[in-house]
Amino acid sequence: MDPDAVAKAFVEHYYSTFDANRAGLLSLYQEGSMLTFEGQKIQGSQNIVAKLTSLPFQQCKHNITTVDCQPSGSAGGMLVFVSGNLQLAGEQHALKFSQMFHLVSNQGNYYVFNDIFRLNYA
Amino acid sequence: MDPDAVAKAFVEHYYSTFDANRAGLLSLYQEGSMLTFEGQKIQGSQNIVAKLTSLPFQQCKHNITTVDCQPSGSAGGMLVFVSGNLQLAGEQHALKFSQMFHLVSNQGNYYVFNDIFRLNYA
Repeated sequence: MDPDAVAKAFVEHYYSTFDANRAGLLSLYQEGSMLTFEGQKIQGSQNIVAKLTSLPFQQCKHNITTVDCQPSGSAGGMLVFVSGNLQLAGEQHALKFSQMFHLVSNQGNYYVFNDIFRLNYA
Repeated sequence: MDPDAVAKAFVEHYYSTFDANRAGLLSLYQEGSMLTFEGQKIQGSQNIVAKLTSLPFQQCKHNITTVDCQPSGSAGGMLVFVSGNLQLAGEQHALKFSQMFHLVSNQGNYYVFNDIFRLNYA
């Protein structure tokens, strides 16, 4: 399996789910998963999705600029590094962001073990 | 050892070395280390430093805006996510960048196993 293709498919699935139905991201995380969102540290799939669904905007659209990936060294693990912009409904200007994921394989299915998100303010 | 303190110390060491003497970064990588620099994939400490020392600018200064870190799940491993800007000598405007490192412990010393760098164009 081509790692770049896996990374690209994951990224497309992640952001299309985020933009359509944030609660649907729950199955991509597990209990040990970590999110650092704008410096705030959150652990566990339920807490992570609670954070994402409580963000102070309803509709949004992620547009991806770059996707890079590398094997992380642990069995089947993959690091995915994304840059792009986030358009919020009713806002004139999109927000630039960077995000990294560490995907870990569990019986052939990937889940997000690490997730770090930052807005890149101009 | 506080992971955030380790991450901050690594980041300060990495960029001060980069800005003062790029060739000095050699000891931070090993043969299995990977760099993806603006989408270009490079492997091995010698090749990585050859890439960094051949970048088309001489003097530069990294200014760090944010440093986030999480344990990567492999023994002692740590993910470090950085945003900041890069000022090149003679250029009026700094370039915004994001970079992630996966630090792996080898007999108590960390080295960079994964390194992904991207400029964030305005």
